[in-house]
Amino acid sequence: MTMRPKLAFWFEFASTYAYLTAMRIEAAANACGVDIVWRPMVLGPIFKGQGWDTTPFNIYPAKGRYMWRDIDRLAAAQGLPPVVRPDPFPQHSLLAARIAMAGIDASWLAAFVRGVFNAEYAEGRHISDPAEMASILEALGLDASALIKRAGTQETKDALRYATSEAADLGIFGAPSFVTEDGELFWGDDRLDAALAWAVKPGA
Amino acid sequence: MTMRPKLAFWFEFASTYAYLTAMRIEAAANACGVDIVWRPMVLGPIFKGQGWDTTPFNIYPAKGRYMWRDIDRLAAAQGLPPVVRPDPFPQHSLLAARIAMAGIDASWLAAFVRGVFNAEYAEGRHISDPAEMASILEALGLDASALIKRAGTQETKDALRYATSEAADLGIFGAPSFVTEDGELFWGDDRLDAALAWAVKPGA
Repeated sequence: MTMRPKLAFWFEFASTYAYLTAMRIEAAANACGVDIVWRPMVLGPIFKGQGWDTTPFNIYPAKGRYMWRDIDRLAAAQGLPPVVRPDPFPQHSLLAARIAMAGIDASWLAAFVRGVFNAEYAEGRHISDPAEMASILEALGLDASALIKRAGTQETKDALRYATSEAADLGIFGAPSFVTEDGELFWGDDRLDAALAWAVKPGA
Repeated sequence: MTMRPKLAFWFEFASTYAYLTAMRIEAAANACGVDIVWRPMVLGPIFKGQGWDTTPFNIYPAKGRYMWRDIDRLAAAQGLPPVVRPDPFPQHSLLAARIAMAGIDASWLAAFVRGVFNAEYAEGRHISDPAEMASILEALGLDASALIKRAGTQETKDALRYATSEAADLGIFGAPSFVTEDGELFWGDDRLDAALAWAVKPGA
């Protein structure tokens, strides 16, 4: 049996471009025989290290205006529903990231991630609200209260903190980012194809 | 006779990603029947408006390290020579931009732009040096001293300043940027294909 190559997909639930990636990465990866490793992180500490207290899309208005237009175009091209601009933007993503961390080895992880992004950017729901998280988990047939409880344990909090520092060590400074098994870093939804190609054949 | 659609290509000579675009945009545009309008600008004033006194690739080290790796990969994929990292980076691009401005309606403009980018990123030459500019202009069979003199006139300086404020008004905040005839803005070498497609069929 040949091992399928792996590609780590580092995401932050508040990221618009990570939304686009999350909704298409599995189909793209399957098409080239790559397994995706879903890696939740929070960008807050990484942005703080760059001197930012929010997303650069809020700090730099021209960049922000462009981003929303770009996201609208790309979502339409991808066949996604019209993008709802979360209010506030960015959404506070810590709870969702901790739930993802609590399910890091679970078979439901990818479906949960897509559920959160869909709630946030297609439905305008507040992903910081435990009731919204519970509704997403329940729709997947999961025990929401047990998982939200597990998300709040020190162990889960520490695991997410550790993952975020691991991301920084890998050179990650934004989301989505992709890291191949040989450590090659790709940043941005528009680098997904290049990252998959590298995962299949490093350096090609 | 049908008019060919036009796409404005806004570039800054110090930009690494604008280098990649400059070396491939004419072939890409020809392949889909689009005419490129070459638009020199300088990003300094625009970056200053964002609170930056240099490129974000210098301000944010992780972003800078990633950018050079990304440029190496993309240049190789594009069949360009190994990228030389200009010293200093970014290069001071005002003289080159003013010469381009002096040739804004000339048939040699595109060849000059490619010549400057090639000198900078394939040969590591100093594009702020008038002797380097003269050598590029002479290789194109042009009167270098007359053009460098024209580049230094108040009229040319004003034209470049005006172009840069026009860029800001169009929403431009980085290079390369592309603007279609109906005002749609695309940012980044990785958006060239999307910009060309929009130029041919807006909104498609």
